[in-house]
Amino acid sequence: MKFSFDILHKDPDSYARCGRMKTNHGDIDTPVFMPVGTSATVKALLTDELKDLGTQILLNNTYHLYLRPGMDVISLFGGSHDFMNWDGPILTDSGGFQVFSLSSLRKISEEGVKFQSHINGSAHMFTPESVIETQETINSDIMMMLDVCPPYPSEKKEVEEATHLSNRWGQRALDARTKDNALFGIAQGGVFEDLRKDAIETIAGMDFDGIALGGLSVGEPPELMYEVLQFCAPHLPISKPHYLMGVGTPPDLLEGIENGIDMFDCVIPTRNGRNGMAFTSLGPITIKNSKYTKDESVLDPNCDCHVCRNYSKAYLRHLFKAKEILVSRLMSYHNVYFFTKLMENARIAIKEGRFKDFKNSFLNKYINGGKI
Amino acid sequence: MKFSFDILHKDPDSYARCGRMKTNHGDIDTPVFMPVGTSATVKALLTDELKDLGTQILLNNTYHLYLRPGMDVISLFGGSHDFMNWDGPILTDSGGFQVFSLSSLRKISEEGVKFQSHINGSAHMFTPESVIETQETINSDIMMMLDVCPPYPSEKKEVEEATHLSNRWGQRALDARTKDNALFGIAQGGVFEDLRKDAIETIAGMDFDGIALGGLSVGEPPELMYEVLQFCAPHLPISKPHYLMGVGTPPDLLEGIENGIDMFDCVIPTRNGRNGMAFTSLGPITIKNSKYTKDESVLDPNCDCHVCRNYSKAYLRHLFKAKEILVSRLMSYHNVYFFTKLMENARIAIKEGRFKDFKNSFLNKYINGGKI
Repeated sequence: MKFSFDILHKDPDSYARCGRMKTNHGDIDTPVFMPVGTSATVKALLTDELKDLGTQILLNNTYHLYLRPGMDVISLFGGSHDFMNWDGPILTDSGGFQVFSLSSLRKISEEGVKFQSHINGSAHMFTPESVIETQETINSDIMMMLDVCPPYPSEKKEVEEATHLSNRWGQRALDARTKDNALFGIAQGGVFEDLRKDAIETIAGMDFDGIALGGLSVGEPPELMYEVLQFCAPHLPISKPHYLMGVGTPPDLLEGIENGIDMFDCVIPTRNGRNGMAFTSLGPITIKNSKYTKDESVLDPNCDCHVCRNYSKAYLRHLFKAKEILVSRLMSYHNVYFFTKLMENARIAIKEGRFKDFKNSFLNKYINGGKI
Repeated sequence: MKFSFDILHKDPDSYARCGRMKTNHGDIDTPVFMPVGTSATVKALLTDELKDLGTQILLNNTYHLYLRPGMDVISLFGGSHDFMNWDGPILTDSGGFQVFSLSSLRKISEEGVKFQSHINGSAHMFTPESVIETQETINSDIMMMLDVCPPYPSEKKEVEEATHLSNRWGQRALDARTKDNALFGIAQGGVFEDLRKDAIETIAGMDFDGIALGGLSVGEPPELMYEVLQFCAPHLPISKPHYLMGVGTPPDLLEGIENGIDMFDCVIPTRNGRNGMAFTSLGPITIKNSKYTKDESVLDPNCDCHVCRNYSKAYLRHLFKAKEILVSRLMSYHNVYFFTKLMENARIAIKEGRFKDFKNSFLNKYINGGKI
């Protein structure tokens, strides 16, 4: 089956749009948030729960699965779907970002990137071709090209070289593909408008199924990321899905949608959940706060998830203080629901031509706790 | 509502029997295994899952809940049921066992036991009366009297003193009760036949709703515990439920049932599960074993639980090696199901008058891996 993307609705007042992707493992309504299942598990959650929560697609990390359990194990199962018991769509990153953020002794050349495993120090090399082979073994529905992702801040010259090398790797990724799994290109360019514009045009001109903005949410302040999104928006190829990698908070998602982004992924609903943070319609709360010791109310009065129908803040705080695994489950569950519901409501607002009102109304409650 | 216990079936060839307890939060078919929810959570599992798994009653630990979150929090919720979102029966221990195993600077007197919290070193005292008050606050359906539980091995004189003091505390517990929550007595006596017989007769002569054997599974070899169970069996009061505290492995449970035990609790399905051990019909297995790296088979070919219908040993091993929370969930889930199913099958066997055959057949597979 061939990947496809159709735009169903456009917001009259912004770049926001609703679309539908068709993949080998099912359709996806956009804009969509993709929970991250790094090691073939969205931490603390069952795939059955993810489905109940409305998750349409989830991420696997190529770097992690390549190192552990390894492709010899994954290939036994015909890919990640059967291995992790998830029959919906999976997107894999290329592994490049983790090479830069987790591994040691990286060495980038025209050919690819050499690195040492963060698990046992063993030596490996990723090339644009090898990561396609790995992702085809994982059998992800959407694969990503290998790119070079400079940190923030970086000199313009460094970002420019990384962007051009990434562009060359993009063509090699396309040439390496042997199956009909979708493949997205990645436009780098850091926070520099001219580099971003060039990178987007170059990647958009290639035969990719979608385009991602890489190199954001790498340490720059949110306002700067929003500025980049704004100057990128007019240049993104309208007919292809737009993916903002590794982003982000609820306000980030809405800013992205306003600027034409269709897909997001981020660990924060699960990672922050495990660390005791709940996202709520009245803003984030930290469950370990002692003021919740005797609080019989639920995390979010406007939420109808299983956690908010059954568990008090006092109980969740107790579990957190007692270091009980259950709190990671419950907080992750609620947070993924919150992100999923936010995207569902954004899609409805776009269809009804009122995205900007929706965004402003959400942010007013979220930032001010509904108190103004 | 008054607690009641009716015997429905007796095995013709042993002391095994099937019964039904009625409690404030529902009926319980015996013999029953009770998963342990120390801090008002059965580690890694949702109460909804416990219900799906066939859990009829679970434990809370009085010592833990008394220290954290504290009775001021629990009382806000009218007890533990609403706090932890479990509407079925709850049994609480008295806290005595944890005072002896977890806290420091214990001092036993006729009045009770002084101890320091294992969490923050704060000083506390439990008396036979105070632990009843605490358990009535938790609103457990079955409360346990405070007792003194000597370790193994202990001198006979020490065990005798502990047993006699426990017996005196038993009467004080009964006198302290103000509500209709059931209250069980505990017979101590260590591994000494005469002390056990005396203790059982003393406790059986009091107005308790059930009788427990305490002071077993405290370090003695299984064969010695089995010997104690055998010499206790003829003395246990037939019309009251018999509870073997803190036990045990699947063979322990069957040995207990054969000797007239109706109730068991133990952390091993969940604790061992988190440590990577799965109980199976062909014996326990350790999932981290490298031989499972590429093993596409499920934990137990004879199990129909959610885990055994959907997850391979290779995946579970991968999760364990990657220290993923999900493995604690899946292993705990399977193990609790295994224990619950074992008890359900034992009840059926008793009803059909073939308990000894059932036990022998189970143990043959469990101990020999079905290979002889």
